[in-house]
Formats: sequence, C-alpha cells, structure tokens
Amino acid sequence: MTGVARWLEQFGTCLAKQDAAGAAALFGAECYWRDLTAFAWDIRTHEGRDAVRGMLAARLAAVRPTGFRITSEKADEAWLAFETALGRGVGHVRLRDGRAWTLLTALRELKGFEEPAGRRRVAVRDEKRFQEPYVVIIGGGQGGIGLAARLKRLGVPAMVVEKNARAGDSWRKRYESLCLHDPVWYDHMPYIPFPDHWPVFSPKDRIADWLEMYVKVMQLDYRTSTECVNARYDGERWHIVLSRDGAQEIVSAPHLVLATGMSGFPYVPQLPGAADFAGTLCHSSRFGSGAAWNGKRCVVVGAGTSAHDICVDLDSHGAQVTMVQRAPSIVVKSAALLKHAWGKLYSEEALEAGITTDIADLTVASLPFKVLPETQRPLYRLIEQEDADFYAALGKSGFLYDFGEDGSGIHSLYLRRGAGYYIDVGASQKIIDGSIALKSGCAVKGFDNRSLVLDDGTGLPADLVVFATGYGSMNEWAARLISREVADRVGICWGLGSSTKGDPGPWVGELRNMWKPTAQPGLWFHGGNLMQSRHYSLYLGLQLKARFEGLFKENA
Amino acid sequence: MTGVARWLEQFGTCLAKQDAAGAAALFGAECYWRDLTAFAWDIRTHEGRDAVRGMLAARLAAVRPTGFRITSEKADEAWLAFETALGRGVGHVRLRDGRAWTLLTALRELKGFEEPAGRRRVAVRDEKRFQEPYVVIIGGGQGGIGLAARLKRLGVPAMVVEKNARAGDSWRKRYESLCLHDPVWYDHMPYIPFPDHWPVFSPKDRIADWLEMYVKVMQLDYRTSTECVNARYDGERWHIVLSRDGAQEIVSAPHLVLATGMSGFPYVPQLPGAADFAGTLCHSSRFGSGAAWNGKRCVVVGAGTSAHDICVDLDSHGAQVTMVQRAPSIVVKSAALLKHAWGKLYSEEALEAGITTDIADLTVASLPFKVLPETQRPLYRLIEQEDADFYAALGKSGFLYDFGEDGSGIHSLYLRRGAGYYIDVGASQKIIDGSIALKSGCAVKGFDNRSLVLDDGTGLPADLVVFATGYGSMNEWAARLISREVADRVGICWGLGSSTKGDPGPWVGELRNMWKPTAQPGLWFHGGNLMQSRHYSLYLGLQLKARFEGLFKENA
Repeated sequence: MTGVARWLEQFGTCLAKQDAAGAAALFGAECYWRDLTAFAWDIRTHEGRDAVRGMLAARLAAVRPTGFRITSEKADEAWLAFETALGRGVGHVRLRDGRAWTLLTALRELKGFEEPAGRRRVAVRDEKRFQEPYVVIIGGGQGGIGLAARLKRLGVPAMVVEKNARAGDSWRKRYESLCLHDPVWYDHMPYIPFPDHWPVFSPKDRIADWLEMYVKVMQLDYRTSTECVNARYDGERWHIVLSRDGAQEIVSAPHLVLATGMSGFPYVPQLPGAADFAGTLCHSSRFGSGAAWNGKRCVVVGAGTSAHDICVDLDSHGAQVTMVQRAPSIVVKSAALLKHAWGKLYSEEALEAGITTDIADLTVASLPFKVLPETQRPLYRLIEQEDADFYAALGKSGFLYDFGEDGSGIHSLYLRRGAGYYIDVGASQKIIDGSIALKSGCAVKGFDNRSLVLDDGTGLPADLVVFATGYGSMNEWAARLISREVADRVGICWGLGSSTKGDPGPWVGELRNMWKPTAQPGLWFHGGNLMQSRHYSLYLGLQLKARFEGLFKENA
Repeated sequence: MTGVARWLEQFGTCLAKQDAAGAAALFGAECYWRDLTAFAWDIRTHEGRDAVRGMLAARLAAVRPTGFRITSEKADEAWLAFETALGRGVGHVRLRDGRAWTLLTALRELKGFEEPAGRRRVAVRDEKRFQEPYVVIIGGGQGGIGLAARLKRLGVPAMVVEKNARAGDSWRKRYESLCLHDPVWYDHMPYIPFPDHWPVFSPKDRIADWLEMYVKVMQLDYRTSTECVNARYDGERWHIVLSRDGAQEIVSAPHLVLATGMSGFPYVPQLPGAADFAGTLCHSSRFGSGAAWNGKRCVVVGAGTSAHDICVDLDSHGAQVTMVQRAPSIVVKSAALLKHAWGKLYSEEALEAGITTDIADLTVASLPFKVLPETQRPLYRLIEQEDADFYAALGKSGFLYDFGEDGSGIHSLYLRRGAGYYIDVGASQKIIDGSIALKSGCAVKGFDNRSLVLDDGTGLPADLVVFATGYGSMNEWAARLISREVADRVGICWGLGSSTKGDPGPWVGELRNMWKPTAQPGLWFHGGNLMQSRHYSLYLGLQLKARFEGLFKENA
C-alpha cells in the first residue's frame, strides 16, 4: 500500500465516522483544503488544521462523503474520486511527511441530475423550448455564454442578455490587431473544443465567430441588442428591466448573474482641460484601428496589454506614437511564458502526456492561492536570466518593468488586480528600437488645447490620446444596475486580499465574490479569462442547479 | 512472434525487394487488397492473387513502401502503419490459415504537406486569404463542405458553390419532421465533432445550423445563392459559368467536383393526365410540412424513407394518408440496427472500448464489398427472428418487405442503389394499425381529374399526391452541367456492379466514379452519407493535394 493509499484509507475512515478532529489530524501544520462546492455550497480554501476541523464539524453530517479512491497517483500526490450525499466529486491530494499539505475537492455532478451527454443523450430532441428563466445572465461574452451552456446541459432555464447586436461583438468591435495573449489550449469553451488547427493565439474575429456559432449550436436563449437598465430584488425574485430598441420589458427570475466582464467598465481619469483639447480622446475599449491615424501624433496612456497592442497598431499604420507609463509593468515574452508557465499544463506536449484540458484546469485549481507566489517566483527569476539581453535593452529604453512587487509574476498579478502586465508579442522590441516613443515615470496631469500635459511639466502634442487605463471593479456594475447599497453590501469583486497594490487585505484566499454566493441573495458574479470562465462555470452552474432542484438548503 | 507479425515481416521483405510474386504468394486463394490512394492514385479493391501481383508489379518501383509495423493486433488481424515514397499510411490485415484474406492500405498524409494541426498549427493567422481556386466544388451540402474543409487544411484553394441562400438550407428546406436516420456517432463532420449531448438522431435544423457554423469557423470560400449553369473543360482547366442574382461570372480551375448530392436530382414519373389533375402534385424533395393538409386526402407514392416520413408527417397533421407501394422495401427497426449493425462501431459503447470515429471508419473500409453480403445476411436473419411479431404484423397489413434480393440488408442496398429501405422510427406501426392506409403491389398508371389511377384500375381520390420516388444518378448532373457526351464517357456513378436490381454488372468492387479519377480528366464526384463524406473526403482531398503540389504523375 502506498503512502497516499494509506493516508486516504485513514481519511475515509475518519469521515465515515464523522470524526472531524481525527480527519484534521491527518493534515500537516501548514495545510490547505480547497473545496469547490463539494463539502459546502461555496468556493473556499480552508487554511490550517483548525479551519479544516471546523468545516468538517459543520458539514460532515449533511455531506456524508464516501467511496474515496485513488484514480491515479505519482509519488506523494494522487487524483481522487468520491461521492457525497448529493453528488460525485474528484479530488487531488499532496502529502508532505505523510500528512496532507494540499487537498482539492470538487463537485462534478449531482446524482440524478447528470448532464444528458454520452449514454444519457436524448434520442431526437429535447422538447423543452425556452421557458421562463430561472437565471438571467447579464453580459453575453465568453463568460455569460459558457455559463448559459452549462445551465442548458444541466436543464436550468437561463436567459442571456447582450447589449451588442451579435454574439461575439465584444471581441469583434475591439481594435483590429487584437489577438488572445493566452494560448489556444487554455482558451477552449466548455463542450466544444476548438479544432486542432486553431491558431495558438487566436485573432479576435475568430473568437467572435466561434462564440456566435456556439450560441447557435448550443441553442441558448440569447437576447441580442438588449440592455439591462435596472434590477430589483423583492426578497425572492429579481425584477429586471430590459431595453431593446427603446422598448422596455420586465423579466423576473430568482437568480441574477453579472457576467459583464471583469474588464467591462472603462476607467478614464477625469483631467482638467479635457473639454478644451482639440484632438480626439478615447478609452482603449473604444479604439478601433490605427488606419485613420497615419502621420498623426498619438499618445497612449498606460503600459498594460491594451496600451502595448494599440501602440503597435498605430505604429504599423504610420502614426507617431508615444506611450506614457506611470508605474512599472510586468513584461514577459510570450515564448518564455509558454515554456515556463502554460506549457506544462496547456500545450500540445501536455495533451500528448495525457493532460486533458479538464485535468489541467483541476491541476491549476489544486494549488492554493496562498502558495502560488512561492511557486511562481523561481520561474520568473529563470525567465529574467534566460531573457537577460531583452530586459537589459528594455530597461535601457526607459521602460519600467518588474515581476510584481513580490516577484511572483503575471498569474499572481492577474488574480490580485487583473491588470498591470504585458505578454510580449512584439511591442517591446518597438519600444527598444524607438519606433514607439516612451515617457515613463510620469503621470498625466491635464490637457491644454493641443497637448496632453504630464506631471513633470512636459506637454505632448497629440491628435489622439488613448486611455489604456483599465477598467473598474465588477462591483461597479452592481452599483449601476442594482444600487449602491447592494454594491457596498457585496463589496469588492476579484482579488485575494493579498495586501498588494490594488488588492487590499485582509487575506481571503479566494477571488472575492466570484462564482459563489454573495452577501446579496440571488446575486452572482461570473467572469475572468477563458480558462476561469470555462472551469468555474461548472461550479456556479451546479450551485444554481442545486437551488433549481430544491437540493440546496441554507444550513444543510 | 505472432502469426501476423511473421506475415508482416515476410510481406515487408518482399515489398522491399520489389518481389511482386513473392508478396502475392502471401495472400490466400480468396483474397482482397483494398487500397485507398496509398499504392496507386485510385480507390480500388484488388481481388485475387493475380490482381495483387499485377498491381504490385506496376506500382512497387514508384511507391517504395517501407516501415511496415503493427500498431495493434488481435488474434489473426492487426492494424498497421507504413510509409511510401510520398506519404504515411495505415492498414489493416486479416489472416486466414497464415495468409492474407483481406488487406486495407490507406494513405493518411503526404510527407512535407501534413495538415497544420496540433504541433504544426499556426501562431496567429494564416495570411493566405481566398485565392483563385484550384478546385471548384458544386454543391455546398455536408459533402461539399466537408471536402472544402479537408482542402482548407491541406492548403488547396477551393471554392464551394451553393444554390441556396444559407449553408444548411438543403436540410433546412426539407420536410419539418425530418431527422437523420443514422445515429450521431456515424454522422460527425471532419475536425469538429458534435458535442456529446447531441441527439442520437439529429433533427434536420440542427444539422443545418451545424453546417452553417462549420462553414464560418472553418473559414471556407463558400458562395451562397449561386448556381452552376455550365462547365466546360479546355483540356487543362474548367471554365465554370456561375449565376448569382441573374448576373453571370466565369470561374476557372483545373478541378471540378460534383458534390450535388447522390440524392440531388428528383425523379418524378411522367404520367398521363397529370396536367388535368385538380389536386397538388410534388416530389418529396419539395414537400415542406403536413400542416396545410388537415382533413385532406393525400397519397404518397413510394415506400422508402421519405415516403414513410412524409406519411407520418401528414397523418400527424390530421390528413387521410394512403401509401402506394409497388415493390418490396427493406424495413428494419432503428433499435435493431443500432444493436446489430452500427452499435459495434458507432456508439457510446464503441467509444468506451476505444473505437474512435476514425477507427470505425477504417474498420468499415477494411471489409471488401465482395464479402459484405455474407457478413450481413446472418444479422438480418437474427433481426427477422427477434422482431418476428413486428414483421408478422407488417406482412398482415399488406406491406411488402424483404431484406434485399439476396437477404443482405440495408447497407448492401445502399451501396447498390442508395435507396429502397426504411429505418423504422414509427411509421410502420401506423401502417400496421391502419392510420396510414396502404395500397401495395400496384404501380401508378396516370391521373384523372380528381384521382391518381393505379395499374389495377383503382382510382385514389386525392387533394395531394407526393412522389417519394427517389432521385436520378449523379451522372445526370454531369449531363446537365457539362454535356451528355462527358456524362456518357464517365458512366454511371454509385453502385458496385452487383447485378442486382438497379445496379447492373459487371462487378467493379468499388462505388463507381466516387472519390477517384473518372474518365473525364479533372472531373470528380463526391457524396454519400455523412460517414462516407467524412471518410472519403480525405482520400479525394489527398488526390487533389498531390496534383496541386505536382506530386502526381499519371503513370508513376
């Protein structure tokens, strides 16, 4: 019997006896149990033995976990399967010195409510057509669409509300040269993976077309050209005012999901003199193409992904471009990230090694957010060494770069504040060789008639100023669509409470308010990148299904 | 060393020495070598040792096959891999008494021209946009679309010409209740399989929508609302007259593929008195829905799939329906076919046993057409026994059924003449219980003002007569679009030369003119059901690619 098998036997025995203390004693002094809706209707990491014991004491009687078994193992870690009173789950455990260091448990399906796939597929047609929605999803990008597909397969009536005229328009309408900066293996939607000739970094219009077809073939109840004006909760149901072509309609449903995009609410600094500026001003989300700016002077404020992409786009159309950078960004070459970060889980090599998309997603989920930085720092030190010439040249250009304030890189920063980095696919070389001019270490102060004025007194004459200054919190959508009171009660969305810039403490160990119950009954937030939307839509879907079928009881 | 391994070693040695006689001696007296474009640029079954020796003597020097190895084996059969001078192939061999009884060899890719999939995928975008076509495909149903997708991945510029306004319309426009009678596992398109909740028997509109999205996401050069008026070959290129919205355009290309559907050319018997008939006459391909015929008298001429489906549709809309059957049809319950025929290769169970769609396709291909009837007859005897009550009741209703003139069932009949059967999904019970009336053993003779008149003198008063009388040969399309002379030179399409009804001899051992060179240079025929279109589009695609890249030499 292997060490993991012995551990799992003891663990299973303790759980069967409802011995919370005994089970907790099988964990190390440093330990993390991450549970994705299997042991509680929540997404939570229990850090330390006391937290583990407390959760088990509260939940074991209701959850009744059984049938723990190893599905594959390697040295001191293993993939697991188990059942609960309500469902079937998978798990992953890592031992250190014979005790659990990390444990992941994830609900995968509800017994008796399995998705109608494979042997369970329908013969000819599912006679249920669109019904009164149980869930209304505001926002029909990849997040809203993926969640609606999950709910479709789970048999939960859901309506998606999208302000644009066509599914995919939130991609289609963005700047011409936009491509995904995450590789294809990371980007699949649920159920219908991209075919295997799909480009590594997908151009935006291909993603847009894919989403449009996905809505159609998944037969989603998807309302285009429709905006949510307001949503009000009466204690049991939402009353959601929708507007289409000037006409209003009220839809009611017990659950409301804001999938408006974690990058859905453009942030533009309010600057003195803007009204007198003779040039054009826009936020990066409104920038279409550099084609109109040949020979013109353009300033791009910001040094994240959009700023870099838009500078390249303007430069390639013959504009004179200046980037204004206030604070350091993380810059990493795309190839370095493929080699050192994504590649082990999301790549052709990983697939050939048997690491399916689902296994990759669960592997990422199995690593507690608390220990993520320490696993990432060595990778970035290695990348800095391997690409030393690149970073020397970038530094010489005046560009301010770092690897995050604790050196833990892009993935950490993304979880903390969702911005502040650039995965280099060519812009950095243009900064190095000067074809994109740079003003770094400066903030914007205001405008005069012809120029953007910086806080060091410099005036940058400009025909166009693009604010690639990011987006507000999803929380702002709750304020706008529901009320400030509800938004304040719910609190900030996203971020881990890492006490780093843009992510105030206290530490919470999970992304705040994402894919799990919030302080406002019936209100949910869904979003993130394609990987997160794909993976966490399952757990959000299962939580909604449990409520739809009456399986969810607040304290059971 | 297993028997198959020993055989393969000897076979490989003979081929390496270009010893055609030695290799042929490794085959049994009864033997079949089916080659799909690997040993010759053709699709052909070589029957008997002499044919095997002759082919090898002619081809070995050019083909230079090497590297034969077993990829999996079971008793006296094995899956193989090998290479030729130009490409890589797979194979399958069955031994009897130590000698080859059947051998399949199939080219899978051309060296240096592999599809850009997996590790070969592009980084961001393939800069090649639509170019002057090398291949023009007439007909944008599943056949034309699937072939265009193959050519897209192979980098061969291809244009698809479709007369309807939207991809999928050839399904969308058919009768409302139409569903595929083949199960989902049999029906996947290349590269993007249906998601695993797709119904077992897909409603027509789902297939239509799937095809429409497929055209889009595969980025095909697909011209809608465009008809081919005429095509003329000048000895090197086709000059193809296209018509769209009344405007004509001439497109030229070295290759022309007719993918107009093996069921694309409606056949309606010319009957005396038709002009005086007061009711409505239509071919089954024009029948939309029974909704307009509530309470009306409707006659459906024919006893194949469309006839049965249309009778059910009319009956369910409250029409009084009579089916007119002239000669016996094969009727098999869908469940019986799933159990005894498809299920072993195309089912969830097969997938779980590791039989992928590709392995299933190759397995079907590995069984020579000559021996197909003898493998099928026992299945149909079993089905007749198991469903004895059903057949007794069907016979009692007057319905004329058989299992093909040699008892070899639906698959044989499909290959011989592509029609004459019904996979029962409910119509037979309605015939049995009389809700669909039946006149059997009668041919139609003509019309009087109010009635369809049969050859036994019966007049059937009718408001609607639907001729579910099938379709002409694809050859007719060549006559219509090119010339009668070319059509005659090419000869009949489809059929094996089985000397059974509708499939005159001599025996040719493959489907005539399908997916392989015809007597008319540059003219190809593509079609068949979804499985055939999927599988054979690869070999047709590789033949076109070899020509496009200059790899094909007429006598090498």
